[in-house]
This record gives sequence, C-alpha cells and structure tokens, in this order.
Amino acid sequence: MSEHKILLDHGSGGMASQELISSLFLKHLDNPILRGLEDSAILENQQGRLAFSTDSYVVDPIFFPGGDIGKLAVHGTINDLAMRGAKPICLSLGLILEEGMDIEDLEKIIISISEASKTSGVPIVTGDTKVVPRGKGDKIFINTSGIGVVADGIDISSLNAKAEDNVILSGTMGDHGITIMTRRAGISMEGKLESDTMALHNMVATLLKELPEDIHTMRDPTRGGVATSLNEIAANSKLSIEIKEEDLPVTPEVRTACEILGLEPLYLANEGKCLVVVSEAATARALEIMHSCPEGKDAQIIGKLKNGKPGRVVINTPIGGSRVVTPLHGEPLPRIC
Amino acid sequence: MSEHKILLDHGSGGMASQELISSLFLKHLDNPILRGLEDSAILENQQGRLAFSTDSYVVDPIFFPGGDIGKLAVHGTINDLAMRGAKPICLSLGLILEEGMDIEDLEKIIISISEASKTSGVPIVTGDTKVVPRGKGDKIFINTSGIGVVADGIDISSLNAKAEDNVILSGTMGDHGITIMTRRAGISMEGKLESDTMALHNMVATLLKELPEDIHTMRDPTRGGVATSLNEIAANSKLSIEIKEEDLPVTPEVRTACEILGLEPLYLANEGKCLVVVSEAATARALEIMHSCPEGKDAQIIGKLKNGKPGRVVINTPIGGSRVVTPLHGEPLPRIC
Repeated sequence: MSEHKILLDHGSGGMASQELISSLFLKHLDNPILRGLEDSAILENQQGRLAFSTDSYVVDPIFFPGGDIGKLAVHGTINDLAMRGAKPICLSLGLILEEGMDIEDLEKIIISISEASKTSGVPIVTGDTKVVPRGKGDKIFINTSGIGVVADGIDISSLNAKAEDNVILSGTMGDHGITIMTRRAGISMEGKLESDTMALHNMVATLLKELPEDIHTMRDPTRGGVATSLNEIAANSKLSIEIKEEDLPVTPEVRTACEILGLEPLYLANEGKCLVVVSEAATARALEIMHSCPEGKDAQIIGKLKNGKPGRVVINTPIGGSRVVTPLHGEPLPRIC
Repeated sequence: MSEHKILLDHGSGGMASQELISSLFLKHLDNPILRGLEDSAILENQQGRLAFSTDSYVVDPIFFPGGDIGKLAVHGTINDLAMRGAKPICLSLGLILEEGMDIEDLEKIIISISEASKTSGVPIVTGDTKVVPRGKGDKIFINTSGIGVVADGIDISSLNAKAEDNVILSGTMGDHGITIMTRRAGISMEGKLESDTMALHNMVATLLKELPEDIHTMRDPTRGGVATSLNEIAANSKLSIEIKEEDLPVTPEVRTACEILGLEPLYLANEGKCLVVVSEAATARALEIMHSCPEGKDAQIIGKLKNGKPGRVVINTPIGGSRVVTPLHGEPLPRIC
C-alpha cells in the first residue's frame, strides 16, 4: 500500500476502496467465490437445514497473547454454528475501521483471519468495509456472520437437555477473559496466560457422527462465562443443574490471577470451550471422543441436569456447602470479545 | 426499560443483555426462529443456490429525512441479495452500541427495522449486541447479513453484461447522498429532499419472473454512485458503456443542491435504485415492468454496452461533447451509509 494509515477514502466505495480490496483482502483471503466481488456471494447446491449466525467483535486490545481480533472473529462464528450441530460452510467479513488505523496492523489481522479461515476450512466468501472518522470508532470492529449445514437427524438446542444428562466442559475456564483483563490492566503474571481462542467444529463433528442422538445441547460459554451459559440451559430446559466446585477445570495461572483480582472463573469469557449436555449412557464415550481431540483433551464432567427447581444452577463445594449460581450481573470488563 | 441510556452492562452477555433482548429486540422483532435465542438460527428445508451478503451501516446522522440507519440496514442487504437475482429469505442483525446512547433512539431504530423487515417480508432471525465505551463508537453501528435463494436458471453477474445491452436506471440519482450531505452541512433547501431508501427485491422478482434470461447484470449504485457502479460493470464485462447526460434522471431539488454544493449526481449514493443491464430485445418490456412497480416508476434507459475500450465509461453531453467517467476518487462525504 502507498499509504500506511487508513483514510476515509478507503471506505468510499471508490478507487481507494478497490485498492484496499485488491492489495490486502484478496491478496490474503482469495477464493473463487470472494474473487467475484459482487454484491453477494453465490453458494451452489446447498440442501437441507441451514444454521445462520452473526457476531460483532470489539475486543480491546486487538492483539493479545494467543490471538487477535481477527482470529477471534473467525473462531467465534464458527463455534456459534457448531453449537447447533452445524458444519460451517462459509463466513462473511464486515469491517468498521477507524480513520488513522495502521494499515500494517490491519494486514496482520487480515493474515490472521486468512490463517484461521484456512486452518478451519471455512472460507470468507463476501465482505464489506466502512471507515469512520478518527474518534468515532476504535481501530477496528469486525462482524462475522456464517452459514452452516445441519445434517438430518441432528437437533441440538438448549430446549433438549434432559434430566440426568451430564454436562461436560471441554477444557479449562476463563483463559480468554483473564488474558484480556490482565493485559488491559497492565498486570504481568508468572506462567503462561493466553487466550483459548480455537475453532470447535471438528471436535463437534466427531462427537455428532458417533453420538447423533445422545448429544442434546451445546453452548460455548463466551461473554458471561460458564455460569451464564449454564443458567441459559437450565432456564430453557426447565430443569436445574448441579455442578461440583472441585470438578471445574482452571489452570493454576488463571486461578492465581483470579485470586489476585477477586474474580470468579465461572463468569469469565472463554473463546475455545464448549459445554456439552449428553445422555448418561453416552457420557463415557463422549468424554473419550473429546479427549482424543486436541480441542477437548482436558474435557471433564462438571455437572448434571436434575428435575429440581426449573432454571436453577447450584454449585456444591468440597466442604459440603452449596450455593446458587446466578447469571452474570453487571460487566466485569467491557470489550472482552 | 428502567434505564434510559445504554450502559456497558447491556453488552455483557449477562442479565442486562437479556433485559435488552426481551424488552426491546424480541418485543419488536419477534418471530419463531429469533425467539429461540440460540447461538445460531436454524432455517428448515433450504434447497438450491444461495446468495449470501453482508454490509455494515455507520451513517451519520442516524435519523434523516426519509429514513434512519435501521431502515437503511434492512433495505441495503435485501438489495445486495436482490442484485444477484436472489429472493431474500432472512437477515441477521449485529449492533455495536456506544455507552450512553439514548435507549429511546435505539427503540425507534428497532421499530424501524421491524417495520422494514415486515414490509419486505424478510425476517431478522439471529442477532448480536456489543457495547463499546463512550467515545469509542458513535451511537450505533449496524451490520446486517442476509441469505437469499437463487432460482434455477438465474445467473445475474457483472461478468454477464453483453455488447448492445441497454442500461436502465430504476429512478432518480443522488437522493440519498444529497439528503445526508445537506443534513450534515446544516443546509436547508426548498422543496423535498429525502433519502430514497427502499427495498428492490419485489421489482427484481417481477422482472426475473418474466425475463429470466434477458436480465444480465444488476447493481445498486450505493457508495460511489452510478458512475462507480457503471465502471465496475464495464471493467468486469470487458466492454465499454456509453451514457447520455440528458437521459440521467435527477430531481430538480437534487440538481439545485448539487449546483450549490458543486457536486456531481453521478457520484452520489443511492439506497433504493438499481442499474439493470438487459438485452436490446427485452428492453422495452423490462421498462414496462419496472414502470408498473412503485420502485421503478421513474426508470429510464441511461446507456448502452459497447464493444469499445474495455472498462471505459463515456458520457455524451447534449452539445455533442463526450468525456470519460472515472470511478469515484476520494471521499466526498464519509459515513453516507
């Protein structure tokens, strides 16, 4: 690029927009569908049930240990599709750039999007770029929307959780939330703190291939954390959920950071984890399958659906106590994703 | 709502987000698919070719004569789908709100989205809301993505324009652009200046039903205006386009405003107009059909595709002169849509 900063011109729809598209977006994201640069992408020969999802990403900082806003935007929408049992087939990419943004940073993010898209096997097929004047945005906001195909016989929904189903969490809690939080607060911790941003659709596909009827509900506990997702599942299924405090997987680094900052890992955002609600009979096999995938190597059972008070989530502590886990109240940290 | 301003909490994914969803979004946008509030929407029984499009809207001001950012966001993505010959079936809605935004304004916009969605027959099926701190956004940015179905035999693309095809413009030029521009500049004009924001999919469906093989290309000349869209068609089809200055439809109000401000209507944004490239043989019938639709009542032929210099757009003036029409350089006004 001849310019090193984003100008208002880059959002004009004219020559500067075209230059940005060809020198940056097509360079890294090229594929036959995107290349057409028409008003919309055409996807041939789709059939059956589709999943459709959208998410905007406004995370601050845009680069963080373990990832950046681009990677997050690709993985996040892929995961939203996977949580309904869909195989993601394509994504859209909508950028809102702030005038003055470093084009070098933008290119880093586009390369990261390209890598995440290629690794996941889900192409970006259509896009849009707007530029807002300095001080009316914050570097870059990204919207990704996505389409997935849901195989016949698959019906994953929070309405479908049943009493005596087990709740499996695919890995440790809070890694993304605490990474953004300590980064923003300028706190440096010993050990390795990094975002868990990761696409989960391959593990989900493996699970559903073998256990299409036993997996009842899936949720990725992003904003609001595991506590809020469990409350949604309990409310929608009209059941209660009991979890055991000692079964909740948390890395020592996240635990230490939470103790210092007075935070509860149950409410921290995750960007590469899912809750899987599975029949009692298939639980052992589901765990085996998850352990065989890198995305689920630390999966463990954290709780059980019960015919208790509808919508209530209860945590049992190691010393025999129990307390109600409410959904997130208030905002511990804005712009976590 | 108990609060009258958007708070960071509203973007937390927790209780305040839920309150916003139920008291505002579901209240106005409710439909069986959206109501599920799952990670993605499920669309049953789709078949064939799909169109997929995304657009972010950052228009300033958010309310303007003839519409608002919500209406624009619904119509804009419907039109992007229609320009590929698709029947739009659903939209997603991604909101980025600035802390401190008036909830009353947000509700007005959601009502406007609801009305535009109902009038167009295209439901909002999935959504997402983020909140950024004061000064890191500007009231509201909206992303809409959409899915459409393309009937067999329809192949609309800027690659398909042929020599001797005519170019029809569905109505007057520049209404949206000049409305936003004068509004922002605080200029008040005599007569009626208002945005042309309008959904074009019904007119397009009528055209394609009768003339499926004669309509070769469609484009909605939004940012960059008619001039930029014509250049894209000429470049992609490797043909030239000749237009006649006296055939370009402009209202007297827009003409006067352009003269005062020194602007060229060919470069101004339109939000309810399309360019239709149609075979010579079917042109008269296409015009008739367009004139029978409210969206196309002022449609007229503005030019012709020629075997001239590939990619060149030439305008012939009433006094016998001619000049090359380049795509938009620079940005006459940011945040036009």
